[in-house]
Amino acid sequence: MTSAPDSSAVPTIGVFDSGFGGLTVLRALMRKIPRARFAFIGDTARLPYGSKSRRTIARYAAQSAQFLVQEQKAEFLVIACNTASALALDAIQEAVPVPVMGVIEPGAAAARAASRTGDVLVIATEATVHSHAYAAACRAQGLRALEKACPLLVPLVEEGWTDHPVTTEVIDIYLNELRAEAAGRGLKPDTLVLGCTHYPLLRTLIEHAVRPGVKVIDSAESTAQAVAQLFCERAAPRAPDDGHETEVRCFATDSVEKFEHLGSRFLERPVGKVELIDLGG
Amino acid sequence: MTSAPDSSAVPTIGVFDSGFGGLTVLRALMRKIPRARFAFIGDTARLPYGSKSRRTIARYAAQSAQFLVQEQKAEFLVIACNTASALALDAIQEAVPVPVMGVIEPGAAAARAASRTGDVLVIATEATVHSHAYAAACRAQGLRALEKACPLLVPLVEEGWTDHPVTTEVIDIYLNELRAEAAGRGLKPDTLVLGCTHYPLLRTLIEHAVRPGVKVIDSAESTAQAVAQLFCERAAPRAPDDGHETEVRCFATDSVEKFEHLGSRFLERPVGKVELIDLGG
Repeated sequence: MTSAPDSSAVPTIGVFDSGFGGLTVLRALMRKIPRARFAFIGDTARLPYGSKSRRTIARYAAQSAQFLVQEQKAEFLVIACNTASALALDAIQEAVPVPVMGVIEPGAAAARAASRTGDVLVIATEATVHSHAYAAACRAQGLRALEKACPLLVPLVEEGWTDHPVTTEVIDIYLNELRAEAAGRGLKPDTLVLGCTHYPLLRTLIEHAVRPGVKVIDSAESTAQAVAQLFCERAAPRAPDDGHETEVRCFATDSVEKFEHLGSRFLERPVGKVELIDLGG
Repeated sequence: MTSAPDSSAVPTIGVFDSGFGGLTVLRALMRKIPRARFAFIGDTARLPYGSKSRRTIARYAAQSAQFLVQEQKAEFLVIACNTASALALDAIQEAVPVPVMGVIEPGAAAARAASRTGDVLVIATEATVHSHAYAAACRAQGLRALEKACPLLVPLVEEGWTDHPVTTEVIDIYLNELRAEAAGRGLKPDTLVLGCTHYPLLRTLIEHAVRPGVKVIDSAESTAQAVAQLFCERAAPRAPDDGHETEVRCFATDSVEKFEHLGSRFLERPVGKVELIDLGG
């Protein structure tokens, strides 16, 4: 049995992604739990997970989770990657002795809170959609979900085209296809879940592209809210403006320069020095 | 010293790529050397190489090369991946005891044969451009080369948008930027090298987008030509229409279904059964 956490101690929260998209989750976590220490790892040597198989993703994700718990002494893990949450949450929970939270369940819970019709659209990577993890999590919340893979959106974000006519056009194409499919199935969706941690950078364009009255749910934001609630049960968060600088260490398995360069866009502040680690492979 | 090859024997040629883009090189090789046996490996568990570091790419590529030589008894290796050719040719040559040919030198040689002005444009992945391997190979041919990374083209090909208005628009944006930069440097380019094995699938769109008189060089085609010349020195190729079915075995490190599905587009015939192998990592 693990001993009860010391509520006066500063918790260390491990945050894991295949790349740096999960920095949108870290950003939301830092705002909501400023007193925590954070250790973030991006498994950039092996990204993207979105097009890989369950077996491979589970093996990669378990290695990153073990690094955060064993080396960085994380007491709580957030899987800030929709694909790994969809395909490897069980494998990660088995690999480490600390609580693990993914981004799918909080996203589905936020969709339930937002939807009146009970019909929800989800956009995500190919592997996340293929797993139907959002459909299952939405069903458990009493919702009907229609999922669509949007493989061009991550490359468009990484190209920096977050406010570009081509990106607007691609989003319109994907959403029109999704709406046509929803209509064909007799669904009346009023909520769209952003099922990939890159998509919050396209939130403005996506909000312009959805029909009036459709709410856009950012699962990064919903996940940070759920984690904050867990920690606030144990200790009140420090006020964000008390001059305290939240402690963050960032690790990557490859290309730390690219991580440092692109990461600040996702984190909305400089990511600082990124440490290179080798997980094998 | 290795013994001289038996010119009457059917040669086994190993072809390596990070994914299945290299199937465009295999397709060209099969046309030019129909009597050979081919073993193709796509390291799909770790793709794409285009955004990874030299050290990581070299390690991955050496493992694939060793598999082709040790397990598949390849007597000759073709690195059907611009990124691996640019960043890891030396490492691969050190890792295996057989001759190894990349796609960069043949591409540069074909550009020299095509260009009258001596000024050449190259489009490729981020890692290939960052290595400046094409610039160096073109310089060795007496050419001046200007390189540009086009990171959206591979995802557009993999989305199947090889004849889509969005792809036309993205190609125009990239080529306009490249032409503006060339003009700023006083270059008069008359040749464009496709420095990525995915790009031959966009050849029609790219040929429409270049200025009249600009020749498009497919480095897959040029490489197959160079390999065929080496083998024809030793034995005459069987006529392509003699009823002989070229022998091909395809291996992948992940997602064989995706390989089988997308691969036929690149190979322009069914890829058949793809065998899953584990290279570790």
